[in-house]
Amino acid sequence: MPIKGTGFEVISEHLCHEGKLGYYRHLSPTTKCAMRFTVFLPPEAERDTAAKFPALFFLSGLTCTEENFTTKAGAYRMAAELGLAIIVPDTSPRGDDVPSDDSGELGKGAGFYLNATQEPWAKNYQMDSYITQELREMVLRNFPIDGDRLGIFGHSMGGHGALVLHLRNPGMFRSVSVFAPISSPIRSQWGEKAFRAYLGDDQSAWAKYDATELLKDYKVRPNEPTLLVDQGTADKFFDTSLKPYALAEACGEADFPLELRLQEGYDHGYFFIQTFIDDHLRHHAEYLR
Amino acid sequence: MPIKGTGFEVISEHLCHEGKLGYYRHLSPTTKCAMRFTVFLPPEAERDTAAKFPALFFLSGLTCTEENFTTKAGAYRMAAELGLAIIVPDTSPRGDDVPSDDSGELGKGAGFYLNATQEPWAKNYQMDSYITQELREMVLRNFPIDGDRLGIFGHSMGGHGALVLHLRNPGMFRSVSVFAPISSPIRSQWGEKAFRAYLGDDQSAWAKYDATELLKDYKVRPNEPTLLVDQGTADKFFDTSLKPYALAEACGEADFPLELRLQEGYDHGYFFIQTFIDDHLRHHAEYLR
Repeated sequence: MPIKGTGFEVISEHLCHEGKLGYYRHLSPTTKCAMRFTVFLPPEAERDTAAKFPALFFLSGLTCTEENFTTKAGAYRMAAELGLAIIVPDTSPRGDDVPSDDSGELGKGAGFYLNATQEPWAKNYQMDSYITQELREMVLRNFPIDGDRLGIFGHSMGGHGALVLHLRNPGMFRSVSVFAPISSPIRSQWGEKAFRAYLGDDQSAWAKYDATELLKDYKVRPNEPTLLVDQGTADKFFDTSLKPYALAEACGEADFPLELRLQEGYDHGYFFIQTFIDDHLRHHAEYLR
Repeated sequence: MPIKGTGFEVISEHLCHEGKLGYYRHLSPTTKCAMRFTVFLPPEAERDTAAKFPALFFLSGLTCTEENFTTKAGAYRMAAELGLAIIVPDTSPRGDDVPSDDSGELGKGAGFYLNATQEPWAKNYQMDSYITQELREMVLRNFPIDGDRLGIFGHSMGGHGALVLHLRNPGMFRSVSVFAPISSPIRSQWGEKAFRAYLGDDQSAWAKYDATELLKDYKVRPNEPTLLVDQGTADKFFDTSLKPYALAEACGEADFPLELRLQEGYDHGYFFIQTFIDDHLRHHAEYLR
C-alpha cells in the first residue's frame, strides 16, 4: 500500500546553550510509520538566517530512542561553541502495526541501520534508506544545514550504523567517529540474531552491513577522514559484542586511517559518552569547518 | 514500629570525567523505607585517599528521582574540574507501603523537603530531616566529604527545598543557588495543595517552609553567601507557581544578598539547567574552595 509523507510536526523546541534543540515527528514513506528525531542548531542560526551549518548525524544504540543522546550526552555546549548542528534519529520504526520482538535485540529499538529483506521486517525496517536518503534530504530541505558538510557518529549499535553507512556511501559524510561500536555484527552475539532475521540465511548479504567485511573491499580515498574510536576497557560487551581489535585489524589491512583510544576503566553507558563527547565534536569540526 | 538502618548498598558505579559517579541505596529510619541517591566524587578522590572534598546537595523537582539531574544536567565535567562532590537524593520516600497521590503534586516524587505532620503522610514524608540530618551524616561518614564545606542547590520544587533548608539551618550550607525555584509555595498552585495535605490547615505551620516567609524573620549573617537564582523567561510556570519577584522582594526587605538572572527565552527543563550549570558550580566553588 503506497504511503506519502511531507513536512514535519514540531513536538517541542527548547533554547539550549543559546542554540535551539527541537523534537520533531514526520510520516516516513520509507519506514511506513511516524518517525521522531531531534535537531540542535547552533546559536548563529538564530542570528544569521542565511547561513548554513555543518551537521552531524548521531546514531544511537540498542533500546534507545532519539531521546537518550539528546538528554544525556552533554553535547550541545560544545556544539554551540563549534557551530555544529546535530541530528538524532530514532533507532527503528515505531507503532502498533510495526512488528517487533521482546528481546531488545531485534525489532523496535534495534533497527541496526540496515534495509531488511525478510518478512515480517522488510516493510518497515529500512533504516539505511531512512537515514541516508529520506531523513538526510528532509533536514537539508527544512533546516539551515550544509549538505556538503555532514559528519556521522554513533554508539554501540549506532557505532556500527555510523561505520557501515559511512563505508557504504564514500563521500556522503566528511567525518566519522564512534563510541564503543559493534565493530563486526556478524561476529557479535547481538548482530548475528538480528542479521539472520532481517537479511536471511545468506551470509553474503550480512557482509554488506558489517564494517570489518566492508573494509576488505574499501578503496581508501586520498582525503579519507580519520576514524576516531573511543572504547572503555571496563565495557562488559568489549569481547562478546564489540570486538574493537577486529575493527583495528581490518583498518590496518585496508590502510584506513584509525585512531583507537582505549579508555581505562570506562564502561558502556552515557557517563562514558559524556566524558569524551567534546573530543568527538572537535574531531568532526576539524573536517567540517 | 521502630526501624533501624545502617550502611548502604552500591547499585552501580561509573567512571565519569575521571571522577566516580555512583548510585546507592540504603534503609532510612527517617522515611522508613529504602532511599536511593547518587554521589559524584571528583578525580582527586581516587588519587588522594586522605583528602576530603567540598560537596553540593542538589534537590530535584516534582516527579523527579535521583536520576534526572544525574543523567541530564551535564554537571560532572565542571565538578571534576573544580574538585566538587555532588550528592543527589530522591525527592520523596518510595515503596508500595508509602502513601501517594496520582496528581504528581503530592506524595511520591513530591516530598517538598518538609517534615509532614498530618496523616497518612507523617510516617514517611520526613524529607527535611532525611536530607539535613540522616543523608548528610551518612555521606559524611562514608564518602571523602568535608562537612564544613557543603553547599546546596536545586530546581523548581528542589529550588524551594534548597532555599528553605538553607534558611532554616544558617551555616549548615556555605553556598546556595537555585534554578527556577518555587519561591513561595504558599502562594503557588503546586505548594498550597501539598502544604495543606502535609502540614494541615494551620497556615502558621506553612510559613516555616516558605522561603519568602522565612526571610521576614531571617537575620542576615556577616558572611551570608549570595543567593544565585536563574529563571527562564519562557518558563510556563513563571507566574503561577514560581514567582521569582516575590523572592526578590523578600530578599530586598531582608537585605539578603541576591543575584537574580532572568534568562531570556529559556523554559523550565533540563536544557535550561544544562546551559547554566557551569555558572552555578563556579558560584559554589567560590565559597567552598
